[in-house]
Amino acid sequence: MASSPPAVRYAPATLRAFTADVLRAVGLPAEDAARVAHLMVGADLSGQDAHGIFRLPQYVGRIRNGGINLRPSIRVEQTAPATALVDGDNAMGHLVMTRAAETAIELARGAGVAWVGVRRSNHAGPAALYALMPLAHDMIGLYTAVASANHMAPWGGQDLLLGTNPLAIAVPAGEEPPLVLDMATTVVSYGTIKKYAQRGQPIPPGWMIDPTGEPITDPRRASEGFLLPVGGYKGSGLALMLGLLGGVLNGATFGRDVVDFNADESSETNTGHAIIALDVARFTPVETFKREVDRHIRDLRASQRLPGVEAIYLPGTQRQMRIDERTRDGIPLPTGLVQDLDRLAERVGVGPLSTGNR
Amino acid sequence: MASSPPAVRYAPATLRAFTADVLRAVGLPAEDAARVAHLMVGADLSGQDAHGIFRLPQYVGRIRNGGINLRPSIRVEQTAPATALVDGDNAMGHLVMTRAAETAIELARGAGVAWVGVRRSNHAGPAALYALMPLAHDMIGLYTAVASANHMAPWGGQDLLLGTNPLAIAVPAGEEPPLVLDMATTVVSYGTIKKYAQRGQPIPPGWMIDPTGEPITDPRRASEGFLLPVGGYKGSGLALMLGLLGGVLNGATFGRDVVDFNADESSETNTGHAIIALDVARFTPVETFKREVDRHIRDLRASQRLPGVEAIYLPGTQRQMRIDERTRDGIPLPTGLVQDLDRLAERVGVGPLSTGNR
Repeated sequence: MASSPPAVRYAPATLRAFTADVLRAVGLPAEDAARVAHLMVGADLSGQDAHGIFRLPQYVGRIRNGGINLRPSIRVEQTAPATALVDGDNAMGHLVMTRAAETAIELARGAGVAWVGVRRSNHAGPAALYALMPLAHDMIGLYTAVASANHMAPWGGQDLLLGTNPLAIAVPAGEEPPLVLDMATTVVSYGTIKKYAQRGQPIPPGWMIDPTGEPITDPRRASEGFLLPVGGYKGSGLALMLGLLGGVLNGATFGRDVVDFNADESSETNTGHAIIALDVARFTPVETFKREVDRHIRDLRASQRLPGVEAIYLPGTQRQMRIDERTRDGIPLPTGLVQDLDRLAERVGVGPLSTGNR
Repeated sequence: MASSPPAVRYAPATLRAFTADVLRAVGLPAEDAARVAHLMVGADLSGQDAHGIFRLPQYVGRIRNGGINLRPSIRVEQTAPATALVDGDNAMGHLVMTRAAETAIELARGAGVAWVGVRRSNHAGPAALYALMPLAHDMIGLYTAVASANHMAPWGGQDLLLGTNPLAIAVPAGEEPPLVLDMATTVVSYGTIKKYAQRGQPIPPGWMIDPTGEPITDPRRASEGFLLPVGGYKGSGLALMLGLLGGVLNGATFGRDVVDFNADESSETNTGHAIIALDVARFTPVETFKREVDRHIRDLRASQRLPGVEAIYLPGTQRQMRIDERTRDGIPLPTGLVQDLDRLAERVGVGPLSTGNR
């Protein structure tokens, strides 16, 4: 991986306050602004930088161009004891997905499991945020979404018809941190490409190709090519199936209909998501389950290692390390990003981040 | 891919009758034998050869060594409106999973979605078989399982603590064949390695490594190393999460506890699975959904292709081509496999396959 550029660390509370200030300044109600800011900075806190405060200028651009409904009426229609369909009324995706996750948890309490589909939402940040929500209720969470732009072609093809459609699965543990898988179905997310572009760093071969099949290594050329699926045809197939579950099933966009929210700041995206909450206690006593998960985590971590490997990381281990480190030392933001955020703050009339508490 | 060895084609009905005869001869009740045979030959029919009649000698070995309960009492405990836990009583996995799939469909009819966990089952063949069962009811199917042996180490490790734990997702279409993703979380399944070993063909680098990290290309050396996960740490993480959902949650084996059914023919495996049935009509009208799926399939297939690519295949396309071809022309079995099956037939006292109808 490329080395990190110069960065300044900020306290999470500072970033939350700044983010909420900016969102309020462009018209989001205070409570909604605080909720979105909390989730966005939660992404930074856990190391998912490409989905955190880095996205603020893009979100503000969309809001100012009328691409987001700031006074939405999010509707939840329960369609069966264990299913619901959420119509996000083109609100900020974070708000829609929070409602959807709460609905899934509530329904799963009664039905054992719930599947909640979402339409007319928007980009909602990293998948892990929502898969993790059921864990506070001793439930397992699963989440997918149709990505907010198509950066992938079908396997063997050139047309941009698929997104990085992510899959997240979160499972509670006992004394160990929860296990959290959050994977794009591409080798890397497009957010990661953006991060490299913003830092002026080249991307390794194997992440993107151009229409002749040649690797792209300059992230500024990203729009000329497409991301490669993880594991070849398997990742491509998974992106398709997740897109049907998160999009088509819910009447949300998929394939040719996806609005590229990088290029178009005003059209409604009709983004789709799906979230499942699964009540552990309906299968095995919660304490037994957590103890067993702990035991398996320790077994896996204690495995003999391959030559040259220093430690075995499970899904969620590095996430927890980042949360611990950044809660203690602050969240590092590249100086280029801080300058972008300061310019944004000036445009919307709030105080700059760079003079805030660190 | 390696070229195919000499093969003889048999009518599906011939293989079903032969398989059922063998299973009856070793003690399976006639109805159960017919059901298992139907599913096993269904695997061959759709091209999943490594999970079809090829497995018959192994299943018979396990049955003759007391490793399978031939007179099981499969118990279904509904634990909530949308969840159930199935105790397979160590029956043939195909029988247990058929009950589990039927239960999921039944519960999803009332609750919109159902999640059925399974414990005390056995190897049940390819994942796609079960993910497809809900489709006849205009439902989407998802399936996972803990593989019946650990052929993978955690990412960066050497200890065999993870299996090829598959994920299958099946989505109904209208005029097009259904979309069916059936992926091992390893680059290839262990069944594929067995198929190469049985054919005496080398395996390509990138499928398996030995404990020093060097590739294994001789499939007869398979037991010295381990399979590589699809997409590196992502496939490894997915195998872990699916193992928790299919195994630990249901009180089935996972990790260090997994019984290697290749090496041990008598211990109960306590294999775990999970199946989800999701009722399309609770989200969008079935006809609308199928029409939309057809439209997206056609869009994807019509994509401009990369240089050198002859056709774009979606998950399930090649499966359908195999079903059409093999229903018409018969199922090709390598001559080595036919010889193995004839020897098996002789041992259990039924007529040989090689003189049966082709």
